[in-house]
Amino acid sequence: MPLASAAAQSLGPSRSTVRVCALGGGHGLKATLSALRIIAAEHLTAICTVADDGGSSGRLRRDMDVLPPGDLRMALTALCDDTDWGRTWAQVMQHRFRSKDGVEGSLDNHAMGNLLIVALWELLGDPVDGLRWAGALLGARGQVLPMSRTPLTMSGLVQPKDAHEEQVRIDSQAELARAGQLGRLTDVRLHPEEADACTEAVTAIELSDWVVLGPGSWYTSVLPHLLLPGMRRALSETEAKRCVVMNLKADTDETSGMSPAEHLQVLRHYAPELRIDVIIADPRSVAEQERAAFEEAAAALGADITYAKVRSGRRPDIHDPLRLAIAFNEVFAE
Amino acid sequence: MPLASAAAQSLGPSRSTVRVCALGGGHGLKATLSALRIIAAEHLTAICTVADDGGSSGRLRRDMDVLPPGDLRMALTALCDDTDWGRTWAQVMQHRFRSKDGVEGSLDNHAMGNLLIVALWELLGDPVDGLRWAGALLGARGQVLPMSRTPLTMSGLVQPKDAHEEQVRIDSQAELARAGQLGRLTDVRLHPEEADACTEAVTAIELSDWVVLGPGSWYTSVLPHLLLPGMRRALSETEAKRCVVMNLKADTDETSGMSPAEHLQVLRHYAPELRIDVIIADPRSVAEQERAAFEEAAAALGADITYAKVRSGRRPDIHDPLRLAIAFNEVFAE
Repeated sequence: MPLASAAAQSLGPSRSTVRVCALGGGHGLKATLSALRIIAAEHLTAICTVADDGGSSGRLRRDMDVLPPGDLRMALTALCDDTDWGRTWAQVMQHRFRSKDGVEGSLDNHAMGNLLIVALWELLGDPVDGLRWAGALLGARGQVLPMSRTPLTMSGLVQPKDAHEEQVRIDSQAELARAGQLGRLTDVRLHPEEADACTEAVTAIELSDWVVLGPGSWYTSVLPHLLLPGMRRALSETEAKRCVVMNLKADTDETSGMSPAEHLQVLRHYAPELRIDVIIADPRSVAEQERAAFEEAAAALGADITYAKVRSGRRPDIHDPLRLAIAFNEVFAE
Repeated sequence: MPLASAAAQSLGPSRSTVRVCALGGGHGLKATLSALRIIAAEHLTAICTVADDGGSSGRLRRDMDVLPPGDLRMALTALCDDTDWGRTWAQVMQHRFRSKDGVEGSLDNHAMGNLLIVALWELLGDPVDGLRWAGALLGARGQVLPMSRTPLTMSGLVQPKDAHEEQVRIDSQAELARAGQLGRLTDVRLHPEEADACTEAVTAIELSDWVVLGPGSWYTSVLPHLLLPGMRRALSETEAKRCVVMNLKADTDETSGMSPAEHLQVLRHYAPELRIDVIIADPRSVAEQERAAFEEAAAALGADITYAKVRSGRRPDIHDPLRLAIAFNEVFAE
C-alpha cells in the first residue's frame, strides 16, 4: 500500500470529517496539501494566489491574458490520486520542456501542466471549470481554486536597510519575492485592489471547519489572501477556526532579517481584525531568545502556539508531510 | 445514445471480429479511423508516418529531437471515447494556442496535444509508451503507433511541367506536399532510408485481417508506408487483405494533374511486389473517361474496385464516417 494511503488509515479518526481550506501558493501550499490530503482528502480545498508574474506563468499571462497557472498546477499535483495513473499525470503536469543542446526553444522551462491548464481555460472559458477537469485527470483529492478569477499584480515599497536611502517601488511579484535583500517591504498591495474574490473560494472558506494559512513566501504567497477585500472578509467572518503554519526558516530572500514574531506582525498589520486560533511552529525555527516576542505576537492575534517537530529529517528545509499531518490532526481534534 | 455508438450497434455483425490496421497520416487517416472505429473499435491499429517537418510538429522536432507528434495526435483524437470525457480531452488535444491581439507568442499555433505527447515521450522515454498514455487519457478505442521510432525526413525531385526546365530537389515533407504546383514528383525517398520500422506496427500488420492504406496526401501520408523497408516488407508479406481508399479529389497541391489511375501507378512504381485486394472509390471521384485506365491500374495491382458513395453530403470534400464505415463493412464481409 502506498505510504500516504497507509498513513491515512492509521491517522483515521478525523479523516473525511473535517472540512479544510488551505490558502497559499507555490511550494508552501504544496507542503500543506501533501499533509492535509492524508487527513482530510475528501473535504479539502486549496486556494491559490494569482499574482505570479515570473517564469512560465509570467510568460503565459503576458502572451494570453490568463491567470498565472503555476501555483494552481503545483497544488493540483500535490492532490493527485495515489496511484500509478495519478502520479504519472502529476509528473506529466510538472514536466518542464528543455530543448536539445545548443537550441534555444520557445517552450523552454514551460511546465507542461501550465500549458494544459491554459488550454482548458481557453476551451471551457472559465478558470474554475478548467481546474476541475485538470483535477479529474489527476484523480485529485479535493479541489483547487484561484483566489480570484482576475489576474492580479502586486506592488510594494522597499525601505532600504540604510535609512538614508530612498524607498524603492516594486511592481512585480517575482521581484518582491527577492526584495528582502534590499530592505524591508512596506505598503504591499494587489492590483486591481478591488478585484472580486472567486465566489467558490469564498464559499469554501465559509463552509470550512478549519482554514490554514501558510507556510510559504510570506509576502507573495501568504499575505495576498489578506489583501484581496473579498478573501479578507471571508477569512475574518467565517466560523471556521484559523491556523497559521510558520515557515521553517524566517530569513528568506523575501523576509531577510525578519523574526518569527515579525512574520505574525505583518499579518496583523494588513488585517488587524483577523483572529487566529492556532499557530503551528517547528521548535527549531523559533530560537530561545525569540520565543517571548513570538508568543506575544501570537497572543495579539488571539492564537495559541503548537510547537511540533514538522520538518523533514532528511531535508530539514522542508516540511515533512506525515509530521505536518500529525500536527494538523492534533490541532483539529482539540 | 451518441451517433457513433448507435451506428456501431446497427452495423453489428463484423464489429469486434475483424482486426484492422489503418495506415496514413493527417486528415486522411483521421477520416479512415472515424469510420473504422464504428465497425472495428476494439481491434483497430492506426499507423502514422513520422516525416512531417511543418507547423507545430516541425518546430517541436527541430527544438527537441522527437518524432513529429501531429499526425499521431490527430489519429488519437479520432479514436477518443464517445463520451463527454473522451470528447473533451480530444478537444483539449486539438486546441491550438493563440496569443492575445498584438502579441506574437512563442506558443502560437502549437496544438496542445502535440505538447502533451512530447512531454509523455520525454518522461517515459519511449514513443509507443507515451502514445499508450495519451490514448488512455482519451479512452481511445484501438491503438496509435508511429511507423518508426526514428524521426524521418523526406526528399523528392520535381520534374517541372516545362520539360526543358531542370529537376528541382526538395528535402522537406511540408514542401513536397505543395510541390504538385511545380511539376510531377519523382524519386521520393525517406531518410534515413534504412530506419527500422516500429516493431509493434509490424506485428499489428502481421496480425491483421485487413490493412487499409489511404485516403490522404498521396506522396506524404500514404506513400511513406511503402518507402520504409520494414513496413513495405510487412505489408507485402502479411496474410491480411489489403484495401486502398482513394482520395475524393485527385488533383491536389501534391498531385496536381494526376488521374486516379496515376495514383495507383505511384504505389506500383514504389512497391511493385505489393498486391492490393480491394480499392474503394467514390463514383464521382473517377470520371467516366478515366474509368478504363483506373480499372486497368487496379487490375495491375490485383485489385477489385468497389465504387461506393463515401463522400459527405454536406461537405463533399471529405469522407463521411458512416458511409465509409458501411463501405468497409461490406468489403470486409466479402
